[in-house]
Amino acid sequence: MQQVEGNIVDIHSRKIFPGVLSIDRGKILSIHSNSKKYTHYISPGFIDAHVHIESSMLLPEEFSRLAIRKGTIGIISDPHEIANVKGIPGIEFMLKNSKNALIKMFFTIPSCVPATPYDASGACINASEVCALLETGEFIGLSEVMNIPGVLNEDPEIMAKIQATLRKGKIVDGHAPGLTGKELKQYIQAGISTDHESTKYTEALEKISAGMKILIREGSAAKNYEALKELIRTRPEQVMFCMDDAHPDDLYRKGHIDQLVKRAIQDGFDLFDVLRIACLNPVKHYGLNIGTLNVGDRADFVIFRDLTHFGIESVYVDGKKRYENSRRGEIYTFPNPPRLSEDDIRGAKECNCFCREQIEEKDLQKSVNTAITCIRVIPDEIVTLKETIFLENSISNFESDPKEDVLKLVYLNRYKNLPPQIAYVRGIGIERGAFGSSISHDSHNILAVGCTDREIVQAIHGIIREKGGISVVDGAHSKVLSLPVGGIMTFNRAEEVIDQWEELMKQLKDMGTSLKSPLMTLSFLALLVIPELKIGEKGLFEYSNFRFISD
Amino acid sequence: MQQVEGNIVDIHSRKIFPGVLSIDRGKILSIHSNSKKYTHYISPGFIDAHVHIESSMLLPEEFSRLAIRKGTIGIISDPHEIANVKGIPGIEFMLKNSKNALIKMFFTIPSCVPATPYDASGACINASEVCALLETGEFIGLSEVMNIPGVLNEDPEIMAKIQATLRKGKIVDGHAPGLTGKELKQYIQAGISTDHESTKYTEALEKISAGMKILIREGSAAKNYEALKELIRTRPEQVMFCMDDAHPDDLYRKGHIDQLVKRAIQDGFDLFDVLRIACLNPVKHYGLNIGTLNVGDRADFVIFRDLTHFGIESVYVDGKKRYENSRRGEIYTFPNPPRLSEDDIRGAKECNCFCREQIEEKDLQKSVNTAITCIRVIPDEIVTLKETIFLENSISNFESDPKEDVLKLVYLNRYKNLPPQIAYVRGIGIERGAFGSSISHDSHNILAVGCTDREIVQAIHGIIREKGGISVVDGAHSKVLSLPVGGIMTFNRAEEVIDQWEELMKQLKDMGTSLKSPLMTLSFLALLVIPELKIGEKGLFEYSNFRFISD
Repeated sequence: MQQVEGNIVDIHSRKIFPGVLSIDRGKILSIHSNSKKYTHYISPGFIDAHVHIESSMLLPEEFSRLAIRKGTIGIISDPHEIANVKGIPGIEFMLKNSKNALIKMFFTIPSCVPATPYDASGACINASEVCALLETGEFIGLSEVMNIPGVLNEDPEIMAKIQATLRKGKIVDGHAPGLTGKELKQYIQAGISTDHESTKYTEALEKISAGMKILIREGSAAKNYEALKELIRTRPEQVMFCMDDAHPDDLYRKGHIDQLVKRAIQDGFDLFDVLRIACLNPVKHYGLNIGTLNVGDRADFVIFRDLTHFGIESVYVDGKKRYENSRRGEIYTFPNPPRLSEDDIRGAKECNCFCREQIEEKDLQKSVNTAITCIRVIPDEIVTLKETIFLENSISNFESDPKEDVLKLVYLNRYKNLPPQIAYVRGIGIERGAFGSSISHDSHNILAVGCTDREIVQAIHGIIREKGGISVVDGAHSKVLSLPVGGIMTFNRAEEVIDQWEELMKQLKDMGTSLKSPLMTLSFLALLVIPELKIGEKGLFEYSNFRFISD
Repeated sequence: MQQVEGNIVDIHSRKIFPGVLSIDRGKILSIHSNSKKYTHYISPGFIDAHVHIESSMLLPEEFSRLAIRKGTIGIISDPHEIANVKGIPGIEFMLKNSKNALIKMFFTIPSCVPATPYDASGACINASEVCALLETGEFIGLSEVMNIPGVLNEDPEIMAKIQATLRKGKIVDGHAPGLTGKELKQYIQAGISTDHESTKYTEALEKISAGMKILIREGSAAKNYEALKELIRTRPEQVMFCMDDAHPDDLYRKGHIDQLVKRAIQDGFDLFDVLRIACLNPVKHYGLNIGTLNVGDRADFVIFRDLTHFGIESVYVDGKKRYENSRRGEIYTFPNPPRLSEDDIRGAKECNCFCREQIEEKDLQKSVNTAITCIRVIPDEIVTLKETIFLENSISNFESDPKEDVLKLVYLNRYKNLPPQIAYVRGIGIERGAFGSSISHDSHNILAVGCTDREIVQAIHGIIREKGGISVVDGAHSKVLSLPVGGIMTFNRAEEVIDQWEELMKQLKDMGTSLKSPLMTLSFLALLVIPELKIGEKGLFEYSNFRFISD
């Protein structure tokens, strides 16, 4: 038996008192109050209620190392990205790797793989496969149901997935940006109980009134805290926090759910309301096996130095100290040695799906007439515009015209040796060189953009050579951040990935782009479910008509 | 005896070879090459050739924790700031605390305390005190000689300090921005052998030709790398790296000398030239007791994962592993337990010098005529302009006029209960509230600026209450970053200081300032040796006439 003492933060009774926890076999055996003076606090840990681990480019185990040092004790992860690459074996790989994580990781079953019928993904997951996954008992619910028309039209496939999940008593997550009125009611009626896509306070209020829980999202891409924060005061029982997408540098430098907690405290919201949202509500809604400092609970808690800056001294999971931060350093105690076994690496590599031959410059030739339909990107947005530019003469191969900010954009299927799709994009703003990536939502085919065909081909070569990665070419210099796990993740440590990532970003800025995150902009250019003009398997895709168009 | 193996980086012979170091009693006993394949590198560590530890607000011991994780093995520190507050006991405190540092810390004796005869510092250090300090054997030289007119006019006091240092065979550091021609030659002739204030390539070249070593400075305030970097190619034997001023967030997030090394490598400079500058030249010039991987040297070295990102695996000092960074965490091994003893804390508190009673609003009353002489700050510069503004009528107490960006500026001696000096400043840009600090170069009296007398007084109260600190007041909210050590440093851990610092910065931005670093701007408003208009013991000080003026 083990004892831990300090000021105990009891979210349930909204009190803080000095006392001692007795811990036995991973559970809290008893809690005694005393009258000692402590300077530190024992509190339930933070929970990220919806995050795609893959966006961090890190394996689950390594993700947990960044999360625990920010006081995170658990996450709910939707392995949607790896599922689009490699289907069920991809999901199983994530699950297996997460067993060695420092924190508690829960998974939902991706509901929409592929994301649209127009997508060229590496895998499909149908309703009977969802049922089989539910039977394993390894999942806590069904991931965000993005197929809203499917729900409203009662498409049998998506309805079967939802109903199978509900029959098991599990949660079905939603994804319903801007959905309102009758359609919102019908969507909720189907059994979907959460939403993390609200961007307006009134939108969130309507959803809560109709019966949903709202996840306030503040991630590397979308940031909704400012718009939604008033919910903390008005609906503290109906709200959770999530990051959705978390880049490794943000997790490392800015923080995880702790950032939201600190901001909320600074904004003057009630400490117990904020902690309820960060620590307790996800446990209740999803039935997570995470303790919240009740007698009999799992002994999961965080020791904070104070309740304004939330400096973290240590984190206990199932009664074991998994993280400690003292002046002597930061110490992580993984369940198993964190070196990947041969088995793990083989598993990860098998989880890739990169069956692509190299291409040549001549494959990128494209003749154009005097009018060209271009994708116009908007800085720091994922929506685009359709723009037409006019040339004086038709050209047999129009490479790029960096002076006019017209760059060639290449889409290359990485699962099959199909010919590249070629279009033009404005607003990226590099004045020389090329770059590309095998992270491209949601199917993660290869996208590349550049000023010359030669450099575009070189950027793509780097990605194919590494079986996935982010590639930047600038004249004779080229760099690749290798992503051999599914073409979207790495085996490496977070610090190394951050170093490489920041170096690539610096290089892209040097090349002339003024976009805050040019790689994020690129990675959304093949996401067809977002307006207005995107690129996909059959060329340019127009959202307002929801079809491929000829350029 | 202990053995460490890897790819050995030999800066002296400009070679890298696989091999084994044998270490005995803190020294390198032998080096053997072999033919094994290693992925990691053993290299001499980085050295910061000139830094004021106090600017980090951290104690030397804690500073060392941030430095070692960036591959720094030694620093040369000028305890000029604490010396201006508390004289020799202040210097001795720094020395004592540095004995428990993770890295090797060398100190020079401040040469200019106070910085000018017009300064109201807490202490003076005269020539005979410099001689006494030299006798202790604890110092490697005399700190930057800022008193250029003193040297050129052969002022007996400063000449005595220089000559005593040279007689001991130690180095005299310079500080000669823009000095050229005959005067430069005379300054060097006096025995001053380094300069870290060059901002132009030609300026640096002239100084090197005249016999000086140049420190390329890239700190939190001044940034000269871009201007001087070509020296790495043209004069690699005459150059060192330094930060001069290092804020804790920059040290923690951006890095230390490793940042300069990485940039230089990325800019295509030769690896061995860069490492020579970062690791070897300071050892040679100052005769530092730091090993550089020769047989017989102290066993001081860093293990890098690679030589482009310089990811650090571990750092050895005198053969002891003082830092390790693996997936299991970051581990620091201090020479002694890093908890401060009662003795240390008492020592530090005695090292403060804060004998100031609180003031009241009525003390800040100032009647103005229709013309007011204002200090105009320039964004992100430490030089200011003199500006006159005109009012329609004279006013019996002119508080501030935030709409016109005219704010009351208060200077308050913290060593004696003298009345405050009051002036007006434009360009700070806060639209509400007030802020102040007891960090103000070089004497560290209190400066505060604000929109109302009430809030200015409140900000000053916070600083006096804590016996030093940085204070921000915004209506009913007020926050103080407490600096009880000399009114310029804290006992706290770096991470806590960074949290608090960033919170204050956020608050100041919220209050409307668009200055990148409003606290840095404020802290230079009493530094009289910089143009054009500043505030001091007797009111406004005009640089071009080098005298106090009546406003």
